[in-house]
Amino acid sequence: MLNKIKRLLIGRPMKSTEIEEEKLSKFKALAVLSSDALSSVAYGTEQILIILMAAGFAAIWYSIPISIAVLGLLTVLIFSYRQTIFAYPKGGGAYVVAKDNLGVSIGLMAGGSLLVDYILTVAVSSSAGTDAITSAFPSLHEHRVLIALTMILFLTIMNLRGITESASVLALPVYLFVFAIFVLIISGVIKYISGGGHAEVPELGTAVSNISWFLLLKAFSSGCSALTGVEAVSNAIPNFKQPAERNAAATLMMMGTILGAMFIGISLLAYWYGITPAPKETVVSQIAANTFGRGILYYFIQGTTALILFLAANTAYSAFPLLAFMLAKDKYMPHMFMVRGDRLGFSNGIIFLGVLSALLVILFQGHTENLIPLYAVGVFIPFTLSQLGMMVRWVKLRPAGWLIRFIVNTIGMFTTLAITLIFILTKFNQVWMIFIFLPIVIFLFFQIHRHYLNIADELRIDMDEEKPVIKGSTIVVPVAGITRVVMNSLSYAKSLTNHVVAVYVGFDDEDIARMEKKWEEWNPGVRLITLRSSYRSIIRPLMRFIETVEWKTSETDHITILIPQFITRHWWHYFLHNQTGLLLRAYLFNHKDVVIATVPYHLHK
Amino acid sequence: MLNKIKRLLIGRPMKSTEIEEEKLSKFKALAVLSSDALSSVAYGTEQILIILMAAGFAAIWYSIPISIAVLGLLTVLIFSYRQTIFAYPKGGGAYVVAKDNLGVSIGLMAGGSLLVDYILTVAVSSSAGTDAITSAFPSLHEHRVLIALTMILFLTIMNLRGITESASVLALPVYLFVFAIFVLIISGVIKYISGGGHAEVPELGTAVSNISWFLLLKAFSSGCSALTGVEAVSNAIPNFKQPAERNAAATLMMMGTILGAMFIGISLLAYWYGITPAPKETVVSQIAANTFGRGILYYFIQGTTALILFLAANTAYSAFPLLAFMLAKDKYMPHMFMVRGDRLGFSNGIIFLGVLSALLVILFQGHTENLIPLYAVGVFIPFTLSQLGMMVRWVKLRPAGWLIRFIVNTIGMFTTLAITLIFILTKFNQVWMIFIFLPIVIFLFFQIHRHYLNIADELRIDMDEEKPVIKGSTIVVPVAGITRVVMNSLSYAKSLTNHVVAVYVGFDDEDIARMEKKWEEWNPGVRLITLRSSYRSIIRPLMRFIETVEWKTSETDHITILIPQFITRHWWHYFLHNQTGLLLRAYLFNHKDVVIATVPYHLHK
Repeated sequence: MLNKIKRLLIGRPMKSTEIEEEKLSKFKALAVLSSDALSSVAYGTEQILIILMAAGFAAIWYSIPISIAVLGLLTVLIFSYRQTIFAYPKGGGAYVVAKDNLGVSIGLMAGGSLLVDYILTVAVSSSAGTDAITSAFPSLHEHRVLIALTMILFLTIMNLRGITESASVLALPVYLFVFAIFVLIISGVIKYISGGGHAEVPELGTAVSNISWFLLLKAFSSGCSALTGVEAVSNAIPNFKQPAERNAAATLMMMGTILGAMFIGISLLAYWYGITPAPKETVVSQIAANTFGRGILYYFIQGTTALILFLAANTAYSAFPLLAFMLAKDKYMPHMFMVRGDRLGFSNGIIFLGVLSALLVILFQGHTENLIPLYAVGVFIPFTLSQLGMMVRWVKLRPAGWLIRFIVNTIGMFTTLAITLIFILTKFNQVWMIFIFLPIVIFLFFQIHRHYLNIADELRIDMDEEKPVIKGSTIVVPVAGITRVVMNSLSYAKSLTNHVVAVYVGFDDEDIARMEKKWEEWNPGVRLITLRSSYRSIIRPLMRFIETVEWKTSETDHITILIPQFITRHWWHYFLHNQTGLLLRAYLFNHKDVVIATVPYHLHK
Repeated sequence: MLNKIKRLLIGRPMKSTEIEEEKLSKFKALAVLSSDALSSVAYGTEQILIILMAAGFAAIWYSIPISIAVLGLLTVLIFSYRQTIFAYPKGGGAYVVAKDNLGVSIGLMAGGSLLVDYILTVAVSSSAGTDAITSAFPSLHEHRVLIALTMILFLTIMNLRGITESASVLALPVYLFVFAIFVLIISGVIKYISGGGHAEVPELGTAVSNISWFLLLKAFSSGCSALTGVEAVSNAIPNFKQPAERNAAATLMMMGTILGAMFIGISLLAYWYGITPAPKETVVSQIAANTFGRGILYYFIQGTTALILFLAANTAYSAFPLLAFMLAKDKYMPHMFMVRGDRLGFSNGIIFLGVLSALLVILFQGHTENLIPLYAVGVFIPFTLSQLGMMVRWVKLRPAGWLIRFIVNTIGMFTTLAITLIFILTKFNQVWMIFIFLPIVIFLFFQIHRHYLNIADELRIDMDEEKPVIKGSTIVVPVAGITRVVMNSLSYAKSLTNHVVAVYVGFDDEDIARMEKKWEEWNPGVRLITLRSSYRSIIRPLMRFIETVEWKTSETDHITILIPQFITRHWWHYFLHNQTGLLLRAYLFNHKDVVIATVPYHLHK
């Protein structure tokens, strides 16, 4: 039953060899891996304008140079990540690059930061997508948590179905969004050039009295939130079709070009139309309304924007499980993140991400806006560490033409470092949490690592010296009466060794005498030892007896406790029997180094 | 930790031999077993007056003959239950008497009716006790469910501590109540005789125009609700000190005398003072106010009345577990109701009663008044059946003087039958549920019984013919690598038999080849079989392999699956390991008739 539901939702299990077919072509990869980055176009320009408006309307011309600076940073990031892809063709996320060049601790800092960030991504973008829906249908507002959770559930199931299938379903909205934004930009530019929509705007270079470098930097860092998500491609190289690194690099370049063009286009139109941020209408919505009026094309742009905001979460669904896999392979996260599920995805990572982000949504009741700066810092810390790692790498290896590459990464490093610092300085009250949970996550990584190393150490044997040793065997069979189950157990025990004792726990002398008499009559060829329990507990006297046997014979013999057990046909019959056998088993399992064997008897009635 | 809390609440465990000390003296028994019956004095007269008032104030004189009739019925019940005590010195509840004389089905009807009734008793009286408290402190009204649940919890814990201790704690309020009511009656009578408090009341025999036999019968049956609880003594004979039946009979007579005297006293005073039921003040409260004015004595009477109403639930706590024990002994209820707990009470019965009545209180949000008629019917059905059983018994056995006993029980039977019918006819809309749940309960009894008989049948062996048989043995050891745990398991397996195979499940050929090479190097003297899993499941290929082994060797050999297993030191380490061994064990346990043995290795780090 449960299995059928699983099959319906997830699909048939797939062979391990089918994994090559599951891998991504460039066009599917662009859909799966770029929704987070591309969706930032929906709010990037707006973030810059909001900060600039603090210095008055005259300052809005600064949005153009700032957008160009962001574009410059994007170019630096794209090229430096392109370098990473070729340097680390097996997947070069910040974790791998930082660990490889800067040591394990720094690597874990980058990895932990990204892991937490992916969870925030899912929570934040499912909430943002919900906001888009409830803006259109205000009556749904009270169900926002439920809607966000449904979105998370949908994404989780799609990703459990497998990469290719989720790519097929999710590619359409991504390409629709790109198409919609390009239509908007081209129409807007044509309209402007043909003389329409001109507004009174401050010219480039107009002097603004109360502008400061701090404000400009803050505006720049806010604009940089449009760059979150560009690292996704370099993490996900193992998901690409062969030749993986060439395909990944091409995908990265495509993504960078599209993102850059859309971002600068929106910024330019916003400036030309003299658009300022409004509390109830987004900048993109104002541009679209100015360009088309509120017709079909306007609603098409709004609809695809809402969709892509929601889908931004999907990038995290392909990045989180891969990063968790890499951390688990290095023994910093539980093994379970290494297991591929029925559909070849890392199911545990997908489910873990879904559950944690759902918890965040419930905890914040869908109001996750305050998490956005935290989320941006969580991206720029690993950006910086990754660039720094690449710098060290070039200095160490010095391949042909290393200097130019070193310079690219150095510029990238300083810019991302600066942005990280600006974020921390200007929005400390929203990002301080990272200084609490990042150390905790890293501490957990190290604890897990130590545990695995300890266990490996304890379980390792010297293959030349240590071989299986044959010893004697003593079998203890607790019996509650003379039944078919007991007979089966004794048959089994006698087949293995001559040292078999049956133990019976009685509550009074009468009871014990009766059992002893019956046993003698039956005469199964096994000695019966009877124990008297003054406190009506069966487990305690048995444990004492087993301890005595252990003390006497554990040097020469393996001791087995053989528990006769019948298994009822229906689960509800379970309540009709005092399952002393199961209790005894659980107790022994946790407390004693004796072998516990169960001879099951499946009831037919 | 949990154990310490348990000890604190319940007390130290007691030896089985201490049970004699736990038994009840007459005076403690009166406290434990009569609180239900005696508490009815608080509302019995009032119930009669409420019905009579339908025919006007002139009709209230009928309360005197009706009270005398109830007293007569009480006498009949007391004498007939006295007969039952001597006839069934091992406990003669309605279940035993009806089963013994009228057959199992009728017995189960009586037993099931009583069981459900005890649950209702606890729910109804804890709610009634709460009402008494919240009448005094209205601010507590919104916490009424919590208060009722706290009362149930308190009673459950007291009863888990053991009979004697709960008797010691609970005896005081019962005796205080009896004392208070007698002080009230004596003072009231003295006041009346000395000429005080006379009211204009209709004389006995006054003609009332609109009175009907139906109304009088209804008033009579309502008055009979004062008789619920008189059966408690005859159920509980095994709880008495020796000589149990003499002590029980004496306790029953004491209870009857006290109850009768209090009931008729209250009825008389109510008539003399011309008291009519008021919506906001009880009849007892009016009598007390008339007699003493609202001074200390008045509040003493009100306080002890509230206490006794609350304690009425305690009768059910001693009766339910005993009845459940008897039904379990006859295999109509789960065995677990036969187990005596640490303090020698039938803990499971006590806990079951507590949980179910708590659920009823939560379900009805403390408004359990509507359950009262249901509860009365639930008492009078077993009363009737028990009397009928005694009638049959006298006719069958015909001991000396049987005729007079037969007549006593016959009168009792017809009266209780009449009351049952009146209840069903006059309050059908409140008691119809009994026709639903009584058949369900009886059906469950029979299902449980059939299950136990089937199992006993299936497990029974012919002790002369069937003896343990020695066969060969094949041991299969699933291995995931070469570790200390695997070595221990192989040592164990090789000690038992020469037919040992290790099985390894690999995900690809490379993996399998590596394992085979390592195994050869180690050379543990055990053949390794490798399986290839295309779907990354370890369980499925293993199951297929085990099926093959079963098919080949199950005729000649016992098959054992030996699961190497390490046990982590802390429970949270559990999440760091994919517990395939536990999964495999659970799967095999439920699906296969092979022996499952676990060789545990307790990690030290």
